[in-house]
Order: sequence, then C-alpha cells, then structure tokens
Amino acid sequence: MSNSRGKLVVIGGAEDKQGECLILREFVRLAGGSNARIVVITVATELPLEVGAQYLEVFDRIGVEDVRTFDVSNRENANAASAAKAIEQATGVFFTGGDQVRITNLLGGTKIDMILHKRHEEGMILAGTSAGASMMSNTMIIEGVPETNPRLGIVEMGPGMEFISGVVIDQHFAQRGRIGRLLSAVAQYPHHLGLGIDENTAVVVDGNEFEVIGSGAVTIIDAGSLIYSNFAELHKNGDLALFGVKLHVLPSDYRFDLQNRAPVLQQNLNKAEKTRS
Amino acid sequence: MSNSRGKLVVIGGAEDKQGECLILREFVRLAGGSNARIVVITVATELPLEVGAQYLEVFDRIGVEDVRTFDVSNRENANAASAAKAIEQATGVFFTGGDQVRITNLLGGTKIDMILHKRHEEGMILAGTSAGASMMSNTMIIEGVPETNPRLGIVEMGPGMEFISGVVIDQHFAQRGRIGRLLSAVAQYPHHLGLGIDENTAVVVDGNEFEVIGSGAVTIIDAGSLIYSNFAELHKNGDLALFGVKLHVLPSDYRFDLQNRAPVLQQNLNKAEKTRS
Repeated sequence: MSNSRGKLVVIGGAEDKQGECLILREFVRLAGGSNARIVVITVATELPLEVGAQYLEVFDRIGVEDVRTFDVSNRENANAASAAKAIEQATGVFFTGGDQVRITNLLGGTKIDMILHKRHEEGMILAGTSAGASMMSNTMIIEGVPETNPRLGIVEMGPGMEFISGVVIDQHFAQRGRIGRLLSAVAQYPHHLGLGIDENTAVVVDGNEFEVIGSGAVTIIDAGSLIYSNFAELHKNGDLALFGVKLHVLPSDYRFDLQNRAPVLQQNLNKAEKTRS
Repeated sequence: MSNSRGKLVVIGGAEDKQGECLILREFVRLAGGSNARIVVITVATELPLEVGAQYLEVFDRIGVEDVRTFDVSNRENANAASAAKAIEQATGVFFTGGDQVRITNLLGGTKIDMILHKRHEEGMILAGTSAGASMMSNTMIIEGVPETNPRLGIVEMGPGMEFISGVVIDQHFAQRGRIGRLLSAVAQYPHHLGLGIDENTAVVVDGNEFEVIGSGAVTIIDAGSLIYSNFAELHKNGDLALFGVKLHVLPSDYRFDLQNRAPVLQQNLNKAEKTRS
C-alpha cells in the first residue's frame, strides 16, 4: 500500500528500450509527457556512465527534453546540493538496475532519501527496474538462489527504501525461475504479499491498487492463506513444506487490490466483455 | 488416483545414480530388494544402449541380480515374445527419460502396454523418470515453453499411458522454471491437479495417496479453486489471467491425498513433533 499522491512504476527488469518502449513511455506520460523533468539515479549499478547514457538516449528518443542522471558512489555524493535541487524539481525519478543493497547503503537516511519521499508524497512519479524495483518495499529480497524448491536460508532479506508497504518484490521472475525463493520469502513473512514481476512487465501502483502493464505477467503469492508450514520446526537450509498458498497470475491491464489482497474482479470481467464485443 | 495394487514411483528426472541413490534404492526395495526382477525400458530415448547400460550398472551396484533392458525402436519390437515374458515375470519396471511421445507412440495399444497394466494392477512396481514420469497420467504434457508467464499455446498436451488419473505431471520442475507451463496446463483442465516434481525427487503413489522422497520438493497446483480465468476469452498465445489458484509445496516425507486434493495434515504434524522431541 502507498499513501503517496505519486504513482509507483515497479518494473521486473529488461524493459524494452529499442521497440515501442511501452513501459518507459507510460512512466514518462505519468510524469508529464514532453514536459516531464526526469532524473535517472544510477546508484545501484557499478557502470553508472554506460547505464546512465543508455537511459538518457532512450528518454531523449521518447521525447523528454529535461532528463539528467545522478550517480552516487559514496554517501557524500548523496547529499550533493545540485542533486537535491534536481530531484526537488523533478516530475519523475527512475532507479536503474544493479545491486539493491547499493541503493539502501548509499542513499538510506540521506538528504536525497528524505527529498525522494517528500516529493513522491506530493505527487512525483517514482520508477525502478530490477534492483530499482526490489528496493521499493519495506522489506526487500537482497539475494537468493534461483531454480530451487522453497528452502530455509536460500533468500536473504533486509530493509528496503519503504515506498510501498505490505509487499515483497521479486523481478526477472519467470525468466529466472524465482518462485522458490519468493515462496521462501513470504513463508517467513506471510503478512507480506509476494509480487513476482516478469521481465518487460511492470505494476503501476496508485494508492491501494496496482495495474499490470507490459508483455509478461505478475504472479501474486499470498501466504496469508497458509494452513500449515513447517517453518518454525526447520533448521538451517531445511526444505519448506507449505500447504494452501494462494496464487494469482495477472497479465497486462489486470488490477489488484493490495488492501483486500485480491484481484479486482468486476473491472476485469467488464474488460473481458468489452474485448469480446 | 490409482486402483492398482502396485505402487508407482514417479521421478522428476536427474535422480542420483552415483551417491546414495535414495530414489532408485527405494524403487528396488519396493520391488523386492535383492530378489527384485527389474526390466528397464529405454523406449523414450534415442540412445538406448548408453542409457540402458547406465541403469544396468547402477541397479547391479545396488544389488539387483536380475535386471535386464528392453528397447523398443518400432511397434513390432513392442510385441516381442521375450519382452512380454520378462515383464510378466518382473517385480519392477523402470522407464528411462527421453521423449514421452516415443513411449505413447511406440508402446500405446501394444501387447506390452496391456501386460504392463495387468502386472501393475497385480502389484508390480512401475517407475519412470523425466519422460518416463510424464507419460504416467491420462493426459500428459508433450512439450512446452519454460521460464515464461502462463500463456495459451505454450504447452502441448496429449494422451498419456494412463497409469494414474486426476493429475498432470511435470518434471525437472524448479530447475527448469516450469511453473508457467504447468499453470497453463491446469488452467485448461482444472479437474487435473498439476504435480511439479523437482530433479532427484519422486512421488511414491499408493492408491489415492502419495509420499514425497528425494532432495527437492513436489509443487501441487490446484486450479479447482480458480475464481476467475480469462481462458475462454483468449485467442492463440494470449496471456492467462488466473485468480485464486491453490498451491502446496511438499518436500521429502510429506504425504498428499489425491482424492481430497489436500496434503495429509495430521500425519505431518505428528512427524514434525517427533522431529522436535
């Protein structure tokens, strides 16, 4: 859930940058279209010049006139007055991929962190892809083992940047076989919904609801419905037993109600009927 | 569900053949231990000599004195009197991996097919790994796209060898990112439970129940609880929306009741308490 007036665009990595750029265009549209003032924050990556240049090029191609990049290689950077001013005036901020721990370690508790929250609450659009998606929640996945059954000890978690509560986000979801690690994460914290976002797919969060856009799907894992788990009895690296997990798969245009932990049924049915007629 | 007196050992591929060989040893134990008479059927593979020799070696190492292989390269082979006689006398038959369509195409409706069903109903243990696992059910996955969101058209299905009803089986499950294709399969046939069996993991089916053995887990997908799916409205290759799928994860020693479509809770709780004390 988010109490901010600004929407969140949470992207599962590998968003299209060559073709129609559907997700990046939607971010720009929400941020004001050709009048958007975009700041690309490259803190997550160790290749800030290359990654920054790539996003400058694509946002320029999409038609954004005012776009700049901001790198943070140490915590002093993160308090730079010029960056603070750019973010104060931005209508949209975009976090690139890389390592989500670089984001929390280098930005957490800085002046920029404070300004990002304030501006987002006032309506600034905040987007992030891959590591930039994972860091959005209160508790985030730091790293984990792919392509395995759910096990204790295969997923490391830590505090995120706290732009959205009630969820744990995983990205590159179907493409990297990550359902085991996301199940392991929500087995530990069944009050958090697991959001598995595929590549070139995003959720656009508006208050308590989100809508899916892009070419893949979002898998929502609700461990609140668990009727049994062996979590409490397990030792390190034990195999998890999970009975009665609820799972939803939402492709593009479908909406989910985070507060009621349920897909939005009525609107979807209307949409399906419209499509058929 | 299975009405046969013989148990089924359904293996998710890549079972250990070098180390403790837990799954293959359990198959041999069920088939009579050192008195077992094992037939390895290599029909699924196009490398029957290599694969056959490998299993002869491992079953010999485990201590089986009477083990032979049987290849089927055409339907005439499948009616060979010598093979029929060996299977009539076998206490256990093992299907190797390869291509599950080779099994149904070359064995379906032959004399061997009939004898296998008769002997299994009388108590003969039947095991299969990978392709040999997929073919066990009434409807089987022929092939499908891995590491994708659930979509129409990504999974091809066809008739299996009908040793177990009510399920659709997928193998190499976590290791090859196959939840999307198994969800696509059960979205089409929600009365079938999806069984996703990890590598070096097996289910031992005894009537209406199965128990999990091995190092991974079995993911059971129950689409019977679906409250909405867009399946009927989709065109070819459309992205599936699925609301309210039920999912269970069962590692080694856990049991599942196929008739009630539920994990066996009481026994598992007892087991957990025993482990702690």
